[in-house]
Amino acid sequence: MTVHPAHTRVELGDLKVPVTRVELTNGETFDRYTTEGPGSVPEQGLPPLRQPWIDQRDDTETYRGRETQLVDNGKAAIRRGSARDEWQGERRPPRRAAEGSNVTQMHYARQGIVTTEMAYVAQREGCDPELVRSEVAAGRAIIPANVNHPESEPMIIGRRFCVKVNANIGNSAVTSSIAEEVDKLTHAVTWGADTVMDLSTGDDIHTTREWILRNSPVPIGTVPIYQALEKVNGEADKLTWEIFRDTVVEQAEQGVDYMTIHAGVLLRYVPLTAERVTGIVSRGGSIMAGWCLAHHEENFLYTHFDELCEIFAAYDVSFSLGDGLRPGATADANDAAQLGELRTLAELTERAWAHDVQVMVEGPGHVPLNLVKENVDLQQEWCHGAPFYTLGPLATDIAPGYDHITSAIGAATIAMHGTAMLCYVTPKEHLGLPNKDDVKTGVITYKLAAHAADVAKGHPGARDWDDALSKARFEFRWHDQFALALDPVTAEAFHDETLPAENAKTAHFCSMCGPKFCSMRISQDVRDRFGMKSADGAEEGMKQKSEEFLELGGTVYVEPSLR
Amino acid sequence: MTVHPAHTRVELGDLKVPVTRVELTNGETFDRYTTEGPGSVPEQGLPPLRQPWIDQRDDTETYRGRETQLVDNGKAAIRRGSARDEWQGERRPPRRAAEGSNVTQMHYARQGIVTTEMAYVAQREGCDPELVRSEVAAGRAIIPANVNHPESEPMIIGRRFCVKVNANIGNSAVTSSIAEEVDKLTHAVTWGADTVMDLSTGDDIHTTREWILRNSPVPIGTVPIYQALEKVNGEADKLTWEIFRDTVVEQAEQGVDYMTIHAGVLLRYVPLTAERVTGIVSRGGSIMAGWCLAHHEENFLYTHFDELCEIFAAYDVSFSLGDGLRPGATADANDAAQLGELRTLAELTERAWAHDVQVMVEGPGHVPLNLVKENVDLQQEWCHGAPFYTLGPLATDIAPGYDHITSAIGAATIAMHGTAMLCYVTPKEHLGLPNKDDVKTGVITYKLAAHAADVAKGHPGARDWDDALSKARFEFRWHDQFALALDPVTAEAFHDETLPAENAKTAHFCSMCGPKFCSMRISQDVRDRFGMKSADGAEEGMKQKSEEFLELGGTVYVEPSLR
Repeated sequence: MTVHPAHTRVELGDLKVPVTRVELTNGETFDRYTTEGPGSVPEQGLPPLRQPWIDQRDDTETYRGRETQLVDNGKAAIRRGSARDEWQGERRPPRRAAEGSNVTQMHYARQGIVTTEMAYVAQREGCDPELVRSEVAAGRAIIPANVNHPESEPMIIGRRFCVKVNANIGNSAVTSSIAEEVDKLTHAVTWGADTVMDLSTGDDIHTTREWILRNSPVPIGTVPIYQALEKVNGEADKLTWEIFRDTVVEQAEQGVDYMTIHAGVLLRYVPLTAERVTGIVSRGGSIMAGWCLAHHEENFLYTHFDELCEIFAAYDVSFSLGDGLRPGATADANDAAQLGELRTLAELTERAWAHDVQVMVEGPGHVPLNLVKENVDLQQEWCHGAPFYTLGPLATDIAPGYDHITSAIGAATIAMHGTAMLCYVTPKEHLGLPNKDDVKTGVITYKLAAHAADVAKGHPGARDWDDALSKARFEFRWHDQFALALDPVTAEAFHDETLPAENAKTAHFCSMCGPKFCSMRISQDVRDRFGMKSADGAEEGMKQKSEEFLELGGTVYVEPSLR
Repeated sequence: MTVHPAHTRVELGDLKVPVTRVELTNGETFDRYTTEGPGSVPEQGLPPLRQPWIDQRDDTETYRGRETQLVDNGKAAIRRGSARDEWQGERRPPRRAAEGSNVTQMHYARQGIVTTEMAYVAQREGCDPELVRSEVAAGRAIIPANVNHPESEPMIIGRRFCVKVNANIGNSAVTSSIAEEVDKLTHAVTWGADTVMDLSTGDDIHTTREWILRNSPVPIGTVPIYQALEKVNGEADKLTWEIFRDTVVEQAEQGVDYMTIHAGVLLRYVPLTAERVTGIVSRGGSIMAGWCLAHHEENFLYTHFDELCEIFAAYDVSFSLGDGLRPGATADANDAAQLGELRTLAELTERAWAHDVQVMVEGPGHVPLNLVKENVDLQQEWCHGAPFYTLGPLATDIAPGYDHITSAIGAATIAMHGTAMLCYVTPKEHLGLPNKDDVKTGVITYKLAAHAADVAKGHPGARDWDDALSKARFEFRWHDQFALALDPVTAEAFHDETLPAENAKTAHFCSMCGPKFCSMRISQDVRDRFGMKSADGAEEGMKQKSEEFLELGGTVYVEPSLR
């Protein structure tokens, strides 16, 4: 799928690493890291790109796998007596680490092995494969890559690499069709989502996830507690470790690449939220807090954490350690509950690493700008550099309807200081379920925030994109300016709203300032007429040319032929 | 004009300082600083609020004033042989300082006088009038208040006060009707613009500005070089000091409160732009650069700066020292041309202050996030704390169509570090002329950025708004959440897109997470059931309640009646 006529998907090198090549009208090209994927027929899914790499390592086995149950698809499936599934593609048996093996990218990295996934990632990022390996080995980066999701194009999350963006999809109430969910996935990925979380909580949850995984070229994350709660009919106190573990295995066998686990919501932290303005705002956090209080027992995700690590290691599922006690208002930012939980997440990070399991740590939420840096500094210090994955944060609470923007401000700032991945926020945050347009707006907003951070960090090559676009702008290559834009469709539509004619695409002005007041045109005229090709030549050139210019009439603009 | 049924305009104290009072459903009220204005009939304008204050000082005189010329309204007026003007209100003669008087707010402040304008401002800001006086006296804040714009409600621009937002209006090409321009002004002000710049460059420019001034409750800024260039038919080399001075007097007599003057674009700086990616991107900057090169002479705005100061002092026009050499691409940020000009703006600031003329200094533009703080630090140091007024800056160049967001990121950051006023950027930036919807989007985006900065600065009372909204959110007072939102209309519309029923406005969830997964509801249930009214009581309460809770069935949600 391409979003602009000047875009082509090009595959580079032996590993056929895809980039979006932008063909410019001046004969140059510009290559952009892309997450577009090759496109798929929803009923058949994507080809399993990574299958040969996994096979070649010869350290996994296929097995019969867990029996699918009706409850996996919720009440509707139970009512119907069958799951709904029009899948037409192959069904692969699940795969896991062979006895005695550990198949995580971290394990390989620590053995000094540069996997094909690492080489692929290095090419996408334009860096040395050894940097990828060493960062993964140290836990400072993760490559979410479940062996049961061979359709995914490997990507890396870590502060030494491009800042990534996650988009959440999935319905909260009455489910749309499964194909519609795949459509949302494709839409998010087309616009640049680097990973997608399927947060479905409605009916057909197992099948929806299956279709999403089979069609996703990006890693898929989930929050298994949501499905586990569905399985106990929404009664949090009925949750048990066994039901949760079964759900994790179910999802790991399907190929989920990372899972949010709220293991840091400890019983003793819950009272710390009592005086907060907005209490507990994480769904998973509030569920686990309710469970802890109901049973007056420690969070079972914490007490069974090592068992979880063993499961995760067998499939290479990465932890996304959930911040169940994140602040939901700027008033609650960086408080005792939040920082207490972060200490526990740091402890859990080390426990996961002892199993060679990959970990990222989730962060807030709602944080005033002056407290943003502290969040990432503490997380990086306490968690020994494990990648930070934040939701925004929103820099103010006063603008529901615009929280993609209030949060992009916080997101760009926290990413500049070291956050590795940003979870998008859409304009509907706090108000309702995002639709397809909201998904696009959220992704684009977060891509620009992530890129602003890359530029601020001086990430190698990041500013090349800005420079290519600015150069096209200054040279009035309108088509190139649109093609290079993060959202070419919107850029062109906005321009064409007032100047739709094709010859306006080469005009030396737009309707914003009009021809007389286009500073870029005047600035170019000045350069041309005064021989300002370089700063050295300019001083001399401008003296020579000034008389000549006045003789010519001295106008810095020419009346345009199109108005 | 009110934007929400729960909003009323309330006038406080003897000076009748307006605020927007939000009536909450729990019986409380919340007062917001407002720029809404009392509303006007365009053909008749607003009442001259400040006229008695000006009269009482008894240091001004009315006079015949400059004769209006057809060229003041551009080519169309010349063609028609008459200006277009259906004005039905009073025509006041222009007013200026009486012989030997200086009528600037800075002059009064330096005399130790707290003017009514200062007292009014102090009430709006909720601070001591002496703080206002001392900041204005020191040049660290300005109160743009031309004696010929008595309709304006005084406001202050300075880093010790709320961060302000300016909206640009005015057409670039074919002019809409004059009434339409007034409509744009009102729209910008309703949504929160603290000042408005009229950048009209088309026909009927004098009359349009007259109507805007007579209807504006906020200070109006202009860039007089635009009109001056129209007067010489767009031929920059034909510009002269005399034509420019005449234009400044014309606008000062009308009541323009601040004017952008590109006096820092010196001949010797122009060659420094030769190797830039995007040259000179300020309209005024490129015009003056062209003039300097054409004549090989120093910028006449610089050479006649003291004369300008004398004019400004006579009307209390404030300088907005234009950054004609600001960067137009992140590649050009903080370069020699930009910083050279800033040094000159610092010099001009001191020269203006010698005349007791109020000054703010304009800033960029396009700046990567890592260089933003340096901009405001250097400006504050070199210009001795004169208010900084920045355009964004855009933190990346890759997102035309979303430059309200790329720039809001930079704007919130630069304001947090001390910028006093932010010039908005609309989604149409770089692409076309903003329409009315774009004006609103730009204003709202910048208001949230400004407020995020106020919160980050710990500005007294700033976070109260966030807290009031967050509290309404946590308590499911949906109507209050909408009424407190920066844009109540959009917030309510987004909510109602999926849950339009009136009973959904008290429901303990929205469509985003649905009833089962609403963390706020679960969190409240947990609090209620475990007696968590405070952190102290919570520890004990939760033990007692846990058994009771399990006996009751232990569910953390109740199936909702509305889905």
